[in-house]
Order: sequence, then C-alpha cells, then structure tokens
Amino acid sequence: MVKTISSALEMHLINKGKMEILSKVPLENNADLSLAYSPGVAEPCIEIVKNPSAVYDYTIKGNLVAIVTDGSAVLGLGNIGPEAALPVMEGKALLLKKFANIDAFPICLDTQDVDEIVRIVKAISPTFGGINLEDISAPRCFEIEQRLRKECNIPVFHDDQHGTAIVVGAGLINALKIVKKKMSEVRIVVNGAGAAGISIVNLLNKIGFKHIMLCDSKGIIYKGRPDGMNPAKDAIAEKTNLSHRSGSLFDAMSGADVFIGVSVGNILTKEMVDRMNVDSIVFALANPTPEIMPDLAKEYGVRVVATGRSDFPNQVNNVLAFPGIFRGALNVRATDINESMKLAATYAIASLIDEDDLSEDYIIPNAFDKRITKVVADAVSQAAVQSDVALLK
Amino acid sequence: MVKTISSALEMHLINKGKMEILSKVPLENNADLSLAYSPGVAEPCIEIVKNPSAVYDYTIKGNLVAIVTDGSAVLGLGNIGPEAALPVMEGKALLLKKFANIDAFPICLDTQDVDEIVRIVKAISPTFGGINLEDISAPRCFEIEQRLRKECNIPVFHDDQHGTAIVVGAGLINALKIVKKKMSEVRIVVNGAGAAGISIVNLLNKIGFKHIMLCDSKGIIYKGRPDGMNPAKDAIAEKTNLSHRSGSLFDAMSGADVFIGVSVGNILTKEMVDRMNVDSIVFALANPTPEIMPDLAKEYGVRVVATGRSDFPNQVNNVLAFPGIFRGALNVRATDINESMKLAATYAIASLIDEDDLSEDYIIPNAFDKRITKVVADAVSQAAVQSDVALLK
Repeated sequence: MVKTISSALEMHLINKGKMEILSKVPLENNADLSLAYSPGVAEPCIEIVKNPSAVYDYTIKGNLVAIVTDGSAVLGLGNIGPEAALPVMEGKALLLKKFANIDAFPICLDTQDVDEIVRIVKAISPTFGGINLEDISAPRCFEIEQRLRKECNIPVFHDDQHGTAIVVGAGLINALKIVKKKMSEVRIVVNGAGAAGISIVNLLNKIGFKHIMLCDSKGIIYKGRPDGMNPAKDAIAEKTNLSHRSGSLFDAMSGADVFIGVSVGNILTKEMVDRMNVDSIVFALANPTPEIMPDLAKEYGVRVVATGRSDFPNQVNNVLAFPGIFRGALNVRATDINESMKLAATYAIASLIDEDDLSEDYIIPNAFDKRITKVVADAVSQAAVQSDVALLK
Repeated sequence: MVKTISSALEMHLINKGKMEILSKVPLENNADLSLAYSPGVAEPCIEIVKNPSAVYDYTIKGNLVAIVTDGSAVLGLGNIGPEAALPVMEGKALLLKKFANIDAFPICLDTQDVDEIVRIVKAISPTFGGINLEDISAPRCFEIEQRLRKECNIPVFHDDQHGTAIVVGAGLINALKIVKKKMSEVRIVVNGAGAAGISIVNLLNKIGFKHIMLCDSKGIIYKGRPDGMNPAKDAIAEKTNLSHRSGSLFDAMSGADVFIGVSVGNILTKEMVDRMNVDSIVFALANPTPEIMPDLAKEYGVRVVATGRSDFPNQVNNVLAFPGIFRGALNVRATDINESMKLAATYAIASLIDEDDLSEDYIIPNAFDKRITKVVADAVSQAAVQSDVALLK
C-alpha cells in the first residue's frame, strides 16, 4: 500500500497535475495569429452573432464538459473544499477524454450555497456543451441538479447519482438472468440514502423493479418516519416499501433477494446474509472496503457479488456510463439527459455481455472494453432523438 | 481580404474551435487509473487538506489562467455576448500556451452585472493560478478588476487595460530615445478614454511623463467637466491636464509631441498633425483602421509611427506583455500583479531593443522575438519579490 500511495503522490507532483491545454491549430507566425486571433477571429464571432447555434460549429463548446464540484463530498474524504477536490476533478476530466474523446475541465467552486452554485453554473454555461456535477453532498445535490436541468439549455448530469445507478441497473439486469428471477418479483434492499442510493432506487423503479426498500443509518425509510428524513427521502418513501415496513437493516434483509450497499464497509453481516432468499445477489459498493468482502459473501451463500473495486470481478465503475452518456448527448446536441436516455444507457451496458458469456463473475463489462462508449453513446443519442428532449439545431 | 476571411472561418469550422484538453499521464489500464483516479487520487487530496498551498504542487492550478469575459466589448464588435466571444477567448488562451507555456481556459459569462461577475470569478478561482479579464466594457471593467484584485488571493489582470498600456509605455520609452526628448517635457495627447486609454494614462504617469491630456468623444477631459464623465475619468482629471485646458481633440493637438490613439479609424487629420511639435510621435492603435495610416502620418511629418497592425512596423501587440507577465507572476506564486510588476514589464520590453538597433521602424520588439517571455517574466518575478506583493509559499 505504501508504495502505491507514494507513487500516486509522486505522479501528481512530478507532473504538477494531470492535464494540459493545447492548440489544435498552428501559431508559428503572424499569418497563423491572424487566423486564430485578430483579425480573423472576428469572422466566427460575427457568424455566432447572426446564428447563436453556430457556437457549436466554430468553438470547442460542442465537445466541452465542465466537471463542477463544491468539494462537499469528495470520494470517501467528505467535505474537503474546492482546492483539495481539484485532483479528483482533473482525473474525472481526463476519463472523459480517454473514454469518449470529450474535452473536460474542472470547476471547483468556493461556495456551498445552493442558490449561488445554481447561479454560477448557469452563468458559466455558455462555454460548455454539458455540465457534470461531481462530489456534491446529498441532499443539496438533488436540488442543484434539478434546478440546473431546468435553467440551463445544455445537459446537466450528476454522475454520483445517475452514473452509479445506471451501472448498478445494468449489472442487476444481467444478474437476474443468472438466478432466473423476475424484476417484478425480486425484493431489493438498498442501504445508503445519499446521492447514489436515492438515484439507484429511482432508476430501478423506472426499469420495473417493484419491491424496493431503502435504508439509511436510522433503518428502513417509510412514509412519515419521524426522524432523519429530507425531501428526497420523502419522495422515495412514496414509491418504495409499499408494505410500509419499519425497523433496522437487519429487519429489512429478511426475505431479500438483492442487497445493494452504497454505505460503509463491513456493515453486511453473516446473520443478515442468512436472512436472504436463495440465489441472492449482493452489490457491496462501499470503497475501498465493501459492505462485505466478496469471498465472505460467497462463503455465506451469495450467488452473485459485485463491488466498486477493480481487484474483484464485477466492478461497478461509473466510467462504463458517463463517457458514453455525454458523448451520446453531445453528438445530437441534446439539451438534457432525460430518463429515457438514462434507461437506454442502462440497457446498452447490460447488452454488452452475451448470454453465452454471462456468469456469476461476469455480469458487468470491463472498464477498458473498447465497445462500450460507442454502444452507450449510440443508444443515448437514439433515445434523445426518440424522446421529448429538445435538440439544438 | 475575402480569401483570408473565408479561411479563418473554415479553420474554426474544421477544427470545431482551436483548443483541446489532454492528459499528461497514461490512462491505459486499471493500474494507471488507480494512480490518476480512485483510489490513488485521494493522496494528493489529503496532502492539500493538510497544507492548502500544496494545491500548487499536486494540481494544474499553479500553471492555469482563466480568460474571463462577459462579452460586452469584444474586439471592435462591441457587446456581442458570451457565446460569440468564445472564439476570441479560445485564441487568447492559446497565446498564453504558445508564448508562456501557460495552460489557459476561456470562461464566458452569461451576466453583465458587476456584483455578480465579481462573485462568480471569486467563486471559481480555486481552480486557477491567475485571472485574465478580457473584453469587458469600460467603465465596468475598472470596478470589476479593482474588486477582484482585493478579494482574490491570485493575480487578476485586465489585459485590455494594462497589456496595451505596458507595450505603449515600452514603445514610447524607445521612441523618445530616437527623438531625444525627455519624459518630463514631452506633451502627450491620448485619444480614447476606455479601458486602454485610462490605463495608458495611468502607466505613463507612473513612468514619469508629466504632461498628458486625455480626450474622449466629447473632447479634452478636465476636472469638473459637466458631461460624459465617470469615476475613472474623474480620477484621471485629477492627475492630467494640469493646465486645465478644455476643447476638442483639434485643440488638444496644439503643441503635442506625442499622439496615442485608442479610439476610431481615420480620426487624426493633417490639420491636427500640423499642430504637433517637430519630431512628433504617433501611436495610431485603432484596429483594423488606425487613427491615421502610417504612410500618411509620415508624409505629414511624423517621425515615429506605431500601429496595432502586424503589416506595418512597430506593432503594439499585447502578446509582448501578458504571457511574460503571467509567467513571471505564476513563477513566484505572486498573489497580485502590482504597479511595480507592470513597470518592470514595461522596461523589460523596451530593453529588448539595443540602442544600436533602435530606429524609427524598430521601437517595439517583434511578437515572435524568442527572448521576450523570459525577459519579461524574470523582470516581473523580481519586481514581485522586491515589492510588497504577497507570495504564496
């Protein structure tokens, strides 16, 4: 561990960060300058004045995504602020370049006021073709994303919510094929009611899962629970836990077919696993320590296990989703990433594993599977065109 | 002309803008990802939490400048808004890369409210090592820059003000050597009281020029003039035009040694030039049409002529100043670009032309002179260290 840590630090130190900004055009002499800058640059400006959507033709906007954070919920480190969040945002930006050839740029905000974040992101949006919200704490992230989606005419996507949900959804679709259970029948317990947990429940609900319970640190969430609720949990309570159960996570696990943890390490005990139905499925996504280690889960009888780690099979990695999603949205100049597009991405990721190749250890494609971005992007573009999302001309 | 125009447009269209964002580190496999992103990226984050200034060591911040505009005064095109301004800001960003190896990124704001611009730029400043304000209309630009310089702990520099002033100052220092006149004696008329005009007067004043008159479209500016004043002009009136003259530009030109135009094309007539002293100097910087064409000025007896154009001798080009200034400020982590640093840049640019090489047609170095950035940067760094500007550790 020490070696890895020191070399990650060293890598950042030697390079002074990880990204650089380069010219795509020559700048070697006055003739070059007169095309790229004054006086030639006036011509694309004038074209954009005449036809505002020409900004997509003559500038980087159409291939540019902002990675916006307020540093309030960074990795597992918590509220570390905008400067300390910058290494993560740089890394995220480079993933968009690597996996989808999208130029992306970190914007780390020195404010955690919801109104101000909304105003700022809206005000900087002319430069960008899309906004990826990152590592913003719940429940503030829900309001920020909802308001920005309404107020901006470019796609706004909070990856910690939807990226995770989409990959979980894809993995779960494939896991059900192995255990031969039906969406409408399986009982799901999601533990953790932050950005990822809330979004996972919403997406699974839309996909067609009927029996979902969401737990937080106070136990099962139900309508009217007196403590630890917020508007996002209230909304979830309306459409989950239809039998109105209450109690602890231990209580919730009774009769569950699926456990999805986006919570804390080692929280899923043998006693809880023992309460699950046969052919159970566990997504233990806490990082770096999962809710239960895969080998233990298997030993206790779980049939399919996924984690967030690259050193175990079935890694739930957002990089399977967000690059293709933004690529697909940008390709058709979609003004939003709507529910149809998210569902299309989910099914596209699931579809990458043929029935023949599917196994307990292979329900989710590998992050470096070269087919992914195009398959996801095409599905997302198609869903945008076929749904009610506005497309800029 | 038509050919140039169509190829500038075509160049922007083919490339979809001019810049791209690339990785400086490999991202080919899970091991690479674990260093550049999760889990390795947590290590530089933790270091920055422990020591905030480590953000300069582990991220791009220390080499990154934002090119911020509200699109209110773009080139000669006026208030064209943030989207149409983007081609200019991209170009500007690339000049910083080309001439000073600084990564720079355009931020085009969808607001022209001064308070909001100040709040937004301050809020996005954690990502950046410096802020270059660009193409923001006067007099709003003065307040925006002043407030941001106070509120941000990184350098904020409005190039349209100071970049132009610094290169004009350098050129004028050299021009005086040719005509053998003294700073304290020459009479200067500056025409145009926008961002550049105000800043030119302030800088020349600090360099040691004593007799300056500033004119705007209503004529000579004097203390208490009843119309067309603003706080910036009021401040200028306090320290220029000490003989309290009033009247038109024509009146001002009587007995002038130097004319500096940052106004509109073809405004300087033969009759005005005729009123100047012998061995006169004209900086006709309106673009693309100068206040007087160089050949006409020469014909009317002007000794030294400079313009803003690359197709005549003595081009006043901001690219001589701003890359080295930011390089110098970033190199010592200066928290401001103060007056000492601006003066140092002025003298550094002037010093690049030896007495032996100096001539009527060579008072300003060429933009592609390879010595410039280092000479300016070193002078600016030294001035920062020797003056009272705070340097981050």
